[in-house]
Amino acid sequence: MKSRDGSDLWAFFEPRSVVVFGSLKEMLGLGYALIKNILDFGFSGKVYPVNPSHSEVLGMKVYPTVNEIAAPVDLAVVITPPSTVPAIIEECARKGVKAAVIVSENFADAGGDGAELQQRLVDITTHSSIRIIGPNTVGVFNAANGFTTIPYPFGYDKVRKGGIAYCSQTGIVLPQCQPLEDRAYPVSKMCDVGNKCDVNEVDLLNYLANDPETKVVAMHLEDVKDGRRFMDAARRLVARKPLLIFKPARSEAGARASASHTGSLAVNDRIYDTAIRQTGAIRVNTWQEYWDIPKVFAYQPLSTGNRIAIISHSGGAGVVATDVAVESGLAIARYSDATLDKLAKLSPRLAGNPIDLGPPLSLTDDPMSLQAEVISIVLDDVNVDCATIVLYVGTMAPTSYIVEMFARLKKRVSKPLTVWFYGTRLYLIEDVSRQLEGLGVPTYTDQETAVKALGALARYSLLAADTG
Amino acid sequence: MKSRDGSDLWAFFEPRSVVVFGSLKEMLGLGYALIKNILDFGFSGKVYPVNPSHSEVLGMKVYPTVNEIAAPVDLAVVITPPSTVPAIIEECARKGVKAAVIVSENFADAGGDGAELQQRLVDITTHSSIRIIGPNTVGVFNAANGFTTIPYPFGYDKVRKGGIAYCSQTGIVLPQCQPLEDRAYPVSKMCDVGNKCDVNEVDLLNYLANDPETKVVAMHLEDVKDGRRFMDAARRLVARKPLLIFKPARSEAGARASASHTGSLAVNDRIYDTAIRQTGAIRVNTWQEYWDIPKVFAYQPLSTGNRIAIISHSGGAGVVATDVAVESGLAIARYSDATLDKLAKLSPRLAGNPIDLGPPLSLTDDPMSLQAEVISIVLDDVNVDCATIVLYVGTMAPTSYIVEMFARLKKRVSKPLTVWFYGTRLYLIEDVSRQLEGLGVPTYTDQETAVKALGALARYSLLAADTG
Repeated sequence: MKSRDGSDLWAFFEPRSVVVFGSLKEMLGLGYALIKNILDFGFSGKVYPVNPSHSEVLGMKVYPTVNEIAAPVDLAVVITPPSTVPAIIEECARKGVKAAVIVSENFADAGGDGAELQQRLVDITTHSSIRIIGPNTVGVFNAANGFTTIPYPFGYDKVRKGGIAYCSQTGIVLPQCQPLEDRAYPVSKMCDVGNKCDVNEVDLLNYLANDPETKVVAMHLEDVKDGRRFMDAARRLVARKPLLIFKPARSEAGARASASHTGSLAVNDRIYDTAIRQTGAIRVNTWQEYWDIPKVFAYQPLSTGNRIAIISHSGGAGVVATDVAVESGLAIARYSDATLDKLAKLSPRLAGNPIDLGPPLSLTDDPMSLQAEVISIVLDDVNVDCATIVLYVGTMAPTSYIVEMFARLKKRVSKPLTVWFYGTRLYLIEDVSRQLEGLGVPTYTDQETAVKALGALARYSLLAADTG
Repeated sequence: MKSRDGSDLWAFFEPRSVVVFGSLKEMLGLGYALIKNILDFGFSGKVYPVNPSHSEVLGMKVYPTVNEIAAPVDLAVVITPPSTVPAIIEECARKGVKAAVIVSENFADAGGDGAELQQRLVDITTHSSIRIIGPNTVGVFNAANGFTTIPYPFGYDKVRKGGIAYCSQTGIVLPQCQPLEDRAYPVSKMCDVGNKCDVNEVDLLNYLANDPETKVVAMHLEDVKDGRRFMDAARRLVARKPLLIFKPARSEAGARASASHTGSLAVNDRIYDTAIRQTGAIRVNTWQEYWDIPKVFAYQPLSTGNRIAIISHSGGAGVVATDVAVESGLAIARYSDATLDKLAKLSPRLAGNPIDLGPPLSLTDDPMSLQAEVISIVLDDVNVDCATIVLYVGTMAPTSYIVEMFARLKKRVSKPLTVWFYGTRLYLIEDVSRQLEGLGVPTYTDQETAVKALGALARYSLLAADTG
């Protein structure tokens, strides 16, 4: 970790040993809660609690200081009052601890004395090789090895391992605040950079560009420390994998609000917008897009073009999908004559794109087979690069049929597709959605994002084809 | 119903008696399914099944023709093959049936012969006093009396009675396709106008303007039959209650897609956009906005201005809310000196707007009380017209505390507010959201819509104050 180019943050995500500074009060202490989380998620490395007032916690020996630990330590997690933090970090640096996550807040985020304390941390990183994430952060979560530095209860214990790295400048998008088990986002690594006294977005981009587990990076950013380095790092990452950026503080008032909680002042949004575009990253604009658009990259291959097929149970939904497709840079595919012939044989109502399955399905005795056949025919068309599918799930179309249909489809067709389910029961929609994602088909809680995701995929695919 | 100004569509929503034409095959027949729905939702009027092949269904006498029914009939629902429909409607008109919902499809929506059949229906309405919704529709749902013409299973049986009328040109937003029980949208009436051979958006606007149960109208429209009459009707409605319009077919491709399933060609979107704006209606742009923005009007009073307070558990969420507020025409409230003094006494970190409750809550032993106090102080400020609140729900903040806090708050404060919950369990988020809406506080599944809703409320409130 001496290179300082940030390309290797392994000690944060894959430490072999971690020392925890914080209150060990049972249940209430954040040090206690963190150790419990580390154990619950199956981290297999060494954990060393440090606290002068305890001798044992959760069956583990507690050390009075980090110096008493004989073995080498990769990572420190510090959750102590701010005034105590610089001395702890100095001690860790002297011991050769490679990295530290400082969870404690009231540094630059609070201004005044806090800013001075933060400057002391910066000084330590310049005079030693220790690297710091934070302060004012919950740190990291690594789905692959179950390691986390988050000292708050999750309320669940399963995270789907996958290809999305979610990075942010706020703790609200980390696992202790989000329904990662219920929604089963396929996660590789997550990180909240907090006040960025050392590690920042550039380090993360460099690290994640080389991370074999990460297929796509979603990054929430309120400000950028060094524009030029950021753009270079973003370009390098985009050359390898897609980068989605959610950059709030778009408005002047938003930038002021950001400055007041991060201690950094954002610049004019148009500059950010142009810069993001120039790197080949894709800008997203809502929390929902931040969470959901990456799924298409995690689950689907790149597309060979931007021609979309829209297949729906509802004419009205088909029209909405068409609008959003056009607005997302997609072209509405024109089916080949062969496809049109095949569809016409099934029903005269299947001539167009979008296809409204509603009328033909109501005229057949075997709607599930007809639906599967139409989807297959359309996806086989050489003029179709990707598809979005809108399906009803419920009494009239049971989950098992739908899942079987996609299982068969996946064996034959490799074009990217997204699915939006509607129906009268939320639990059925969630259930069929998770089952489809188990097959590698991304699903969306709203129709518009299902289409926008394919727009983002086509845009990145084109870029990758041009430069690859 | 002779006036033809559409101001009275009562026979569709509040018939005293209804005749059903359609297959009475148990379970599979749509006539059977409709009668079951009518009975399940507690309609207390008379139901007359008509079918020459049956003598009894669900314990009710079946009539061979409508003429055999001795009593007067308000409404007919027709779910028979298209070619049989004109004769049925003629028979109903002769008997003096006041209104008919034609569920059958393959009329103008299918083109060719279907368009001719539809013209015959138009002819009947010009030569008689019968009014028609459809064809190609599921018709109506009235939450107040439980009456529906929808012949498909709902999969639930509770709908929250409330002030929102949802009208559309597609069946996908009617109760048989949407989680009305799970999401508890407060509904007055719902209607799918289908092919609009007679009743169209103008009739609905006129009717709903006078409907005492409807506080706000959300309308999905792909095209408008008569622009001038539509604008007049919309203006009259807006003078009484807010009107939200979701107008897809924005793009050329979208308009073509719309024409192919509705049989009507939409015009340039800019014309629609200007027209909608001129009537004082508010345009919404996604399904989610169509469903969720009306909730603020159903549950909250109008606002006295556009100055928003943003209170959140997360600095990052506060910044996003600030952006969306500004983009929605809201101003970020500047708290009075008195408010700032009170907040400063609670914590030095509470000086701004947005307020990030995170840091002060982590420093107190009684976070739930501090949170309640901050929200009360801010809402009491004369410089604050409305507020959006972002709260965590879960292990660290149980539902019961949150609901009690809002119950107390509602007794003291009458300013409009919206709430967005985040957390690690979807069922907890849904549960606390439904409980809050039970208290009259609208909640949102995403942060952005929670803020946009207040923007829409402020815009309509200003208009109402100017003209009222």
